Amino acid sequence: MEIIVDEGAGFCFGVERAMKMTEEVARSSQGRVVTIGPLIHNPQVIEELKKEGVEVASTDADLRDAVVIIRTHGVAPEVEQQLRQKSRSLVDATCPYVKKSHQYAELLHKEDYHTLIVGDRNHPEIKGLLGCAGERVTVINDPDEADALPHFPKLGVIIQTTYPIEKVQRIIAKLVGRTTELRVYNTICDYTSDRQTTTASIARRVQLMYVIGGRNSANTNKLVDTCRQEGVETRLIEVAGEIDERDLEDVERVGITAGASTPEIRIAEVLERLEQISAARVTH
Amino acid sequence: MEIIVDEGAGFCFGVERAMKMTEEVARSSQGRVVTIGPLIHNPQVIEELKKEGVEVASTDADLRDAVVIIRTHGVAPEVEQQLRQKSRSLVDATCPYVKKSHQYAELLHKEDYHTLIVGDRNHPEIKGLLGCAGERVTVINDPDEADALPHFPKLGVIIQTTYPIEKVQRIIAKLVGRTTELRVYNTICDYTSDRQTTTASIARRVQLMYVIGGRNSANTNKLVDTCRQEGVETRLIEVAGEIDERDLEDVERVGITAGASTPEIRIAEVLERLEQISAARVTH
Repeated sequence: MEIIVDEGAGFCFGVERAMKMTEEVARSSQGRVVTIGPLIHNPQVIEELKKEGVEVASTDADLRDAVVIIRTHGVAPEVEQQLRQKSRSLVDATCPYVKKSHQYAELLHKEDYHTLIVGDRNHPEIKGLLGCAGERVTVINDPDEADALPHFPKLGVIIQTTYPIEKVQRIIAKLVGRTTELRVYNTICDYTSDRQTTTASIARRVQLMYVIGGRNSANTNKLVDTCRQEGVETRLIEVAGEIDERDLEDVERVGITAGASTPEIRIAEVLERLEQISAARVTH
Repeated sequence: MEIIVDEGAGFCFGVERAMKMTEEVARSSQGRVVTIGPLIHNPQVIEELKKEGVEVASTDADLRDAVVIIRTHGVAPEVEQQLRQKSRSLVDATCPYVKKSHQYAELLHKEDYHTLIVGDRNHPEIKGLLGCAGERVTVINDPDEADALPHFPKLGVIIQTTYPIEKVQRIIAKLVGRTTELRVYNTICDYTSDRQTTTASIARRVQLMYVIGGRNSANTNKLVDTCRQEGVETRLIEVAGEIDERDLEDVERVGITAGASTPEIRIAEVLERLEQISAARVTH
């Protein structure tokens, strides 16, 4: 059995950076360390962090006298302000790409654009971004929603960093006729677009695809969508233990990719498990 | 035979304005009156203007002591400067929508964008616009040309006022992934987009379409393309005399539209001719 691995998969730049910052704080800090929401969308990593003394804050009481870590997704400026007041100290691990989106949102607001955010309004990244965008703002998550937009004199667009470029292209094409001035900040991060391209290319060459990542991770789920759009049988797994050998019975080529919050060790474990299965098959 | 006329067809706002300005100048001016290139892309109108004493300048000598009229398409600022020096006085009949494009080009240049002009580089409007856009500028006329563009940090787009929106949408979709910041000025004039929509809608309901306008008129030719894309038999005519009765033999519904530089009288003449043919058919 041939195994094709997306060599670029695993922690993205922003997650890697947040993990390092958090581990550094956990090591050096005397008091409690808490994160605002799970640091990354990967339950196994969250469990490991708990062992290092990093907890997810659930009430305001958890913040008092604690070092508070803002995760990669970022928070609204108002929320940051509140966290600063309620905590001992604040460590901002917001992904620099997300910070850039915040700056664009503030700029569009200042320059009197109506802001269109393309992404999932329930995702923490978009919630934080909304806090920078002022009142004249609309969120859409699907090209069809663009059809219902009115005409805007000046329309500025910011995109969720993990959003698929193909869907953005369809949305932008629809916007051209609905505004006199359109400004688009392509805030999709390179990691995300590379992952989608590479994953699609692997998916086209295999009979079964494993996407490793948290079931609660948006970008992992988008990779699953990408594979299925290529028409390939796809399994979302968090750990190697979830691999069902029967799925591989008639498979000659299998692919592996992973979300931005999946540690390399999880990918290595899946690769190892598939190699075992492949080797056992040769022996028989 | 049913005849469907695009009631909005004929002189656009800019052409109407330029015609009025020119006739006013021809009436009031003592000396010679010349235009830079034919005032509009309609040979019959140019002939009529000649009778009123308005000539097309062909050499610098024609400018001396003359009132010089800049036509709707506009000219580059440098050319305007030269005309001012070489003539007795200058009348600027540039379409206000084209003037707006000039302002956008200057703004993009000032704000360090690479400027992409979408349109025909040989059309006078684009030649004039290029004179406002500085050095960092590219002209493309077809969606396929967008594929060859490199990545730009900041890309600003200006569109020929008579360009079809559908082609712009395809171009813009391709640009989203090729730049970090994309700014699009939708400089397609309302008259043009209304004309294209209405013409397409009429074309779908008839068996034969007459598009009235100058053979040298870009927007008239684009209307012909629009009709043919709808799969309807189409004739470009400048005057009613060109109608060939045999084309109408099996036609039950015929459509009429016209370019932005076609006088209403030309449309009325075509309508009259078609009504005659229709009436003759009933009598037989």
